[in-house]
Amino acid sequence: MTTSAVAYATDKQNQQRFLDELKDLIRIPSVSTLPQHKGDVQRAAQFIADDLKRMGMENVAIIPTAGHPLVYADWMHASGKPTALCYGHYDVQPPDPLEEWVTPPFEPTIRNGNLHARGAVDDKGQMHMHLKALESLLQAGHGKLPVNVKVLIEGEEEVGGESIAKFVKENSEKLRSDFALISDTEMFAPDLPTLNVGLRGLIYTEIEAQGAKIDLHSGQYGGVAPNPFFALCQIISRLKDENGLIQIPHIYDKVRKPGEAELTAWASLPFDEKSYRENEIGSKELTGEPGLTVQERTWSRPTLEVHGMPGGFTGAGAKTVIPARAVAKVSMRIVPDMKPDEVVTLYTDFVMSLAPKGVVVKVRVLSMGEPSIIPTDNRFIKAATEALKDVFHKETVFIRSGGSIPIVAEFQKHLNIPSVMMGFGLPDDNLHAPNEKFHIANYYRGIESIVRFLERLGA
Amino acid sequence: MTTSAVAYATDKQNQQRFLDELKDLIRIPSVSTLPQHKGDVQRAAQFIADDLKRMGMENVAIIPTAGHPLVYADWMHASGKPTALCYGHYDVQPPDPLEEWVTPPFEPTIRNGNLHARGAVDDKGQMHMHLKALESLLQAGHGKLPVNVKVLIEGEEEVGGESIAKFVKENSEKLRSDFALISDTEMFAPDLPTLNVGLRGLIYTEIEAQGAKIDLHSGQYGGVAPNPFFALCQIISRLKDENGLIQIPHIYDKVRKPGEAELTAWASLPFDEKSYRENEIGSKELTGEPGLTVQERTWSRPTLEVHGMPGGFTGAGAKTVIPARAVAKVSMRIVPDMKPDEVVTLYTDFVMSLAPKGVVVKVRVLSMGEPSIIPTDNRFIKAATEALKDVFHKETVFIRSGGSIPIVAEFQKHLNIPSVMMGFGLPDDNLHAPNEKFHIANYYRGIESIVRFLERLGA
Repeated sequence: MTTSAVAYATDKQNQQRFLDELKDLIRIPSVSTLPQHKGDVQRAAQFIADDLKRMGMENVAIIPTAGHPLVYADWMHASGKPTALCYGHYDVQPPDPLEEWVTPPFEPTIRNGNLHARGAVDDKGQMHMHLKALESLLQAGHGKLPVNVKVLIEGEEEVGGESIAKFVKENSEKLRSDFALISDTEMFAPDLPTLNVGLRGLIYTEIEAQGAKIDLHSGQYGGVAPNPFFALCQIISRLKDENGLIQIPHIYDKVRKPGEAELTAWASLPFDEKSYRENEIGSKELTGEPGLTVQERTWSRPTLEVHGMPGGFTGAGAKTVIPARAVAKVSMRIVPDMKPDEVVTLYTDFVMSLAPKGVVVKVRVLSMGEPSIIPTDNRFIKAATEALKDVFHKETVFIRSGGSIPIVAEFQKHLNIPSVMMGFGLPDDNLHAPNEKFHIANYYRGIESIVRFLERLGA
Repeated sequence: MTTSAVAYATDKQNQQRFLDELKDLIRIPSVSTLPQHKGDVQRAAQFIADDLKRMGMENVAIIPTAGHPLVYADWMHASGKPTALCYGHYDVQPPDPLEEWVTPPFEPTIRNGNLHARGAVDDKGQMHMHLKALESLLQAGHGKLPVNVKVLIEGEEEVGGESIAKFVKENSEKLRSDFALISDTEMFAPDLPTLNVGLRGLIYTEIEAQGAKIDLHSGQYGGVAPNPFFALCQIISRLKDENGLIQIPHIYDKVRKPGEAELTAWASLPFDEKSYRENEIGSKELTGEPGLTVQERTWSRPTLEVHGMPGGFTGAGAKTVIPARAVAKVSMRIVPDMKPDEVVTLYTDFVMSLAPKGVVVKVRVLSMGEPSIIPTDNRFIKAATEALKDVFHKETVFIRSGGSIPIVAEFQKHLNIPSVMMGFGLPDDNLHAPNEKFHIANYYRGIESIVRFLERLGA
C-alpha cells in the first residue's frame, strides 16, 4: 500500500518519532561561538549527515571549512523540474544566563505544547522540518522526490557565517538552483501563515579601551588615572540620541524607505502595540524613532546595540579598581541599501573620533553580513502561499524581519536566486534568550507545508 | 643575656622567621567581599589571635560581629605611660584578574627583594609589623611593654568596615587610648620616611538598570526595546566632564581647600610627573582637573570611578542579546568636609534624574566611609618622626592619601584620639591589583621603626 507524502508527514507515530529525533539533535550543545564546543558542533553535523544518508539523499558530505563544517546532500533526478536549495543551520547561541532557564537548555522539555531548549526553533527545529519533509517525500515516492533538491546546512550562522559565504562564492556551479528554501524566521502571529521578504544585515564589533598599563587602586589614583569605562560610556552615549537615532554621520544616507504598498500592508497586520510592549518585551516604554511604527523601526531602520561590557570587577561586593582595560561588545543591524564595509568605516571613524584623552581605543570587527530584500513576483513564492493556504486555510502575509540571515544576500549575489523564507517560529519564542521554545504544532505544520510546497512545484 | 628590642627586631634569624610567619598568614585567602571565603577570613583572625597570645599579650579575643570577626588584645601595665591603640586589617581584596599574576596571588613569592602576594602590603604585611614589634618589645622587656597597648584588628576593611565602626562606637570606654597607630599607607618615595595626615572617604554603590523583562534578540527587537547598557552609559557619561570634574550639583560645595602651608609642602615633595605617568600609571596622558597638581587631585579632591559593568554577554565571540538588566559598580572618594550621607543623597538624586525613558534605574549603597584630616601638633607625631629619623636618617614628610581608612574618622569621632599613620608601602606596590608586593627591607624597617617609636613614647 502506498501512502501519500502528506499522510506520511502527518501520521501520529511518525510525528512522535520526528520529535524524538529532533530532541536527540538538540541535546548536542553545538554552540558555535565557544571554542570548547567545537567537538559538539562537529557531532551535530554528523548527526544530520547520517539522517540525510538514511532517508535516501545522495552525495551526502561533511565539508570541512576554516571554521565549522557544512553538510551537503542532493537528489537531482527530477528531470525538467525546478531545483530547490534547502538551507538551514545546526549551530546555536550560547545558553547563558543559565540561571534563568526553567529546565536545562540542552535537555529539551515539553511544557504547554512547546518544546523548550536552546536551538528548539533557531534553527535546529526549523531545519529539521526540511529533513522530515524530504524523508516523507522520499518514502511516499519510493526514493524519488517531486523536484530536484540540494541541501546545504551550516554550523556558523550564529557567528557570522563566513565559511558558507566563501563556499557559495567559490561553488556557484555546484550549488546552481532555482530558489532557496529557508526556515529560520517566524510567523507574524499564531496561525497566520507568513513569508519573510526582508532581512537586516549584522555587523558585530568590539570596542576596546585601554587606560593605564595595569589595574590601579581607585583611592591612590582616582583623579588622575584614565578610566576605560568612562571612555566607553562617553563613546557609547554619543552613538545614539535619546530616541535611538544613530548619531554616526552619514549612517542613514543609503537607508531605503519601504514602498507605500509595503507600508500599507504592514499597517494592516494584526498588531497590538500595548500588548507587544507589556507581554512580549515587558518594559515601561518602547524606545525608538518617533513617528515610525514598531514594524518600521525593527524592519526598515538600522539599530545599534550594546551586548555586554566585560572588564574590571563584576563579582558581588566591592572592589575599588580602576581597570587598565575594558571592552564593549557592540553590533549594528543594517538595512537596504547600506553596505557593510561602508558602515564599518563610518562607525570606526566616528568611534575613534570620540575617544577621550588618555585612553587608547581600538575597534575590532568580528563579522559583517548584508541586508536583503526578496522579490515576491515569482512562481516559488506563489507555490509557497498556496501550500500554506492548504495547511492554515488563510492567506499568507508578507513581512520582513529585524534579524539577519546573511546567506540570503549571498544566494542573491552569487547564485542569482530568490529565497523563500517560510518560517514557523512565533514572536514569543525567546530566540537567543533563556527558555527558547518551538510550538510543536508549528513544527508539524511546517513539515506538512514544505511537503505540499515541493509537491506543488513538481506537479 | 638581655637583648634590646631593636637588636631582637633586627636579628637576621628573627627577621627570617617573621617573614616565614607572614607568608603563612598570606596563604590564607581572606577575601572579605566573597562569601565563599568566609571560613578563610575566620582562619586569618585565629592565626593572629594565636600569635598575640603566644607573644604574651593579654585578654586576647576573637570578637564576633554581624560580619567578619575582630581580633582584640591588650597589655595595660605601664602605669603612667600613654596607651597606644594598634589597628590593622587582615582581610584582602579579591585577586582577579588571576591571569595577570606572575605567580599565584596566595602563594607568596620573593622576586627582587619584594614579597609578591595579595595582601603582602595591604594590609597583612604592614599589620604584621605591629605584631612583630610588640613581640620584640615583650621579649626584650621580659613580658613588659614600654607603653600600654590595645590591639584591634578587623576583617572588613576592604568592604567598608561597618562592624568595627559599630564596635568602636559602642565600646569607647574599653578602647580608651591616647592615640592610634595605623600602618596601612605608603611612603611618598623609596627611603623617604612618611606620615600620612589625611584620607579620602569612600562611598561604594551599584547602579542597576532594567529594560525588558527578559533578554531579547537584538535583531527582532533592536530599535524598540530599551537597552540597559545605553541607560548606564548615558548616566555615567554625564557624571563627570571631560576633565574629570564631577557634574553632580552641589557636590563640591563642602570641599575644603588645603591650607597654603600644606600646598607648599606638597609642591616641595620629590615628584616627577612624567615618570609617574609613564612608569607608575603607564598611560598616554593623565586625566583630571586642569591647574591642580597630581597631589591636589588625588589627595584633596573627590573622584568618581566605575569599577565594572556586569550584565549581558561578556564571553568571547558574538552573542546578539539585548540584556534585560545591567549594573554599573560606581564609587566615590570624598574629602573633608563632605558628609557621606549628604553625598549619597546628591548622587542618588542626580543619577535618578538622568535615567532615560523605558528603563527602571535603582541605586544601591554598599558602603559609606568618612574622610579625615589628622592634627600634627602632638607628641605622638613628634615621637614618630624621631623614630623614623633613627631608622632612615632623614626628616619625615607629611602627606595625605587618596585612599580610604574609614576607621580613622571613627577613632576621631568616638575615641577623640589622633591617628599616627606610619606606613611603609611604596607607590608601585600594586595595591588592589595583580602582582601586589611589599618591599621586604621596608617590612623590616617598619618593625624597627615601631619598636623605636613605642620605646620613645615610654621613655
